[in-house]
Amino acid sequence: GGRSGRRLVRSYDEPCKKMTLYFHDILYDYSNSTTNSTSAAAAKPTALATAVSPNGTFFGEVVVFDDPMTEETRALPPPSLRETAAARAQGVYLYDSKEVYDAWFAFSVVFNSTGRRGTLNLMGADLMSEKTRDISVVGGTGDFFMSRGVATLRTDAVEGLVYFRLQMDIKLYECYI
Amino acid sequence: GGRSGRRLVRSYDEPCKKMTLYFHDILYDYSNSTTNSTSAAAAKPTALATAVSPNGTFFGEVVVFDDPMTEETRALPPPSLRETAAARAQGVYLYDSKEVYDAWFAFSVVFNSTGRRGTLNLMGADLMSEKTRDISVVGGTGDFFMSRGVATLRTDAVEGLVYFRLQMDIKLYECYI
Amino acid sequence: GGRSGRRLVRSYDEPCKKMTLYFHDILYDYSNSTTNSTSAAAAKPTALATAVSPNGTFFGEVVVFDDPMTEETRALPPPSLRETAAARAQGVYLYDSKEVYDAWFAFSVVFNSTGRRGTLNLMGADLMSEKTRDISVVGGTGDFFMSRGVATLRTDAVEGLVYFRLQMDIKLYECYI
Repeated sequence: GGRSGRRLVRSYDEPCKKMTLYFHDILYDYSNSTTNSTSAAAAKPTALATAVSPNGTFFGEVVVFDDPMTEETRALPPPSLRETAAARAQGVYLYDSKEVYDAWFAFSVVFNSTGRRGTLNLMGADLMSEKTRDISVVGGTGDFFMSRGVATLRTDAVEGLVYFRLQMDIKLYECYI
Repeated sequence: GGRSGRRLVRSYDEPCKKMTLYFHDILYDYSNSTTNSTSAAAAKPTALATAVSPNGTFFGEVVVFDDPMTEETRALPPPSLRETAAARAQGVYLYDSKEVYDAWFAFSVVFNSTGRRGTLNLMGADLMSEKTRDISVVGGTGDFFMSRGVATLRTDAVEGLVYFRLQMDIKLYECYI
Repeated sequence: GGRSGRRLVRSYDEPCKKMTLYFHDILYDYSNSTTNSTSAAAAKPTALATAVSPNGTFFGEVVVFDDPMTEETRALPPPSLRETAAARAQGVYLYDSKEVYDAWFAFSVVFNSTGRRGTLNLMGADLMSEKTRDISVVGGTGDFFMSRGVATLRTDAVEGLVYFRLQMDIKLYECYI
């Protein structure tokens, strides 16, 4: 036929596609201004959070986010960043430990520029005590059709409880071109 | 040996399996009757929802569902639909945007009829401003053992805040037969 | 080059890797002691839970967990179990049915021993009325780089509303060695 066929490229030692994106999260925590916030707790802080997390690990807290991702690291992004972001990360993280400050993520990276269109879907444990930690790229759509791989997370900046920035090195080992 | 071996079928241009299902969601929102509801918010609407979502985008709301899926589109399904449904969709969606009406889904499609048994597991961003949007089929079990693919979502009907219906075109590109 | 290459092993009839782990969940429910708890509801029990779940199916409840996993079944684990656990399961489950007692899981199994390092990422429906039910292993990292497979769940013990133990037979059908 006239249409060109997709082809699977697999490589297990070197990624077939690689990119670094910075994930910016500004939490609205019920006390600060909402103007800049890009994420929101799903429920009011519960008695539980205090009862079981005397160390402030926020055990049980579920946070929904629509976070800008940029190609360059930079300070607290301006509200207008969303428009110029390389991508957006949409989904959820949760604080899942009583004793240490650990999180778990499930989200989509949404690309919507002239160069790239489509999504990558990721999930995994963000074990914050480790310098770097890996989560899974479990699928993709559009320009990332059926992709799989690994993303390596590194905490790049933390400003109190309101802002953090993660460096995400996304490495795809299955690409369809 | 005597047992028949499974075989992997891959195709990247045409799906190896394809089906269309309609996803019916009836939200119980704390004020209406619960009789027909198939989904429920995980937490009471928070001050946050009002504070950060003046436009009513429900940013931060997490909804758990057990929704019937049918092979034919149809109006608001009767409570008895569950028994005759082709499948059930079980999982969670969340409203993840301040400015627009966007959602994110993670769920299982559960098949339990004489013709089909097993589950498909999906996740991805439901960017509602797009006419169609793709999410990932990241795995499967039973008759859908180890399947992967893409599901294309299209809003088929909306009745206020209480009912919506999504058309889901599920296309598997990795099948194991 | 000098570095050794990864190799993909696929097998669809017999797993390329197999293990059994027991998942221990001790819920803190706002009334009991938090000392032993390994999981926490994300929100206070809502009016909804009562309104739509007269049968006590906890429809809409979202629970975040950091649960120890052991290689042997055993009674209610002591608080110190965490240190000796074979792995930890971190993530979320939710009760997603009005009429029956059904749950949905998304989580990571985190291995951090001398023998095994890395994570497996799982999601799927825990249809509790079935004796066994399958969920998907959708990805992995570290020693479980890019793994996929199926985990079979079986309820091994239930003690009231506070403790349950699941047997998880994890079978990987795609391994990268």
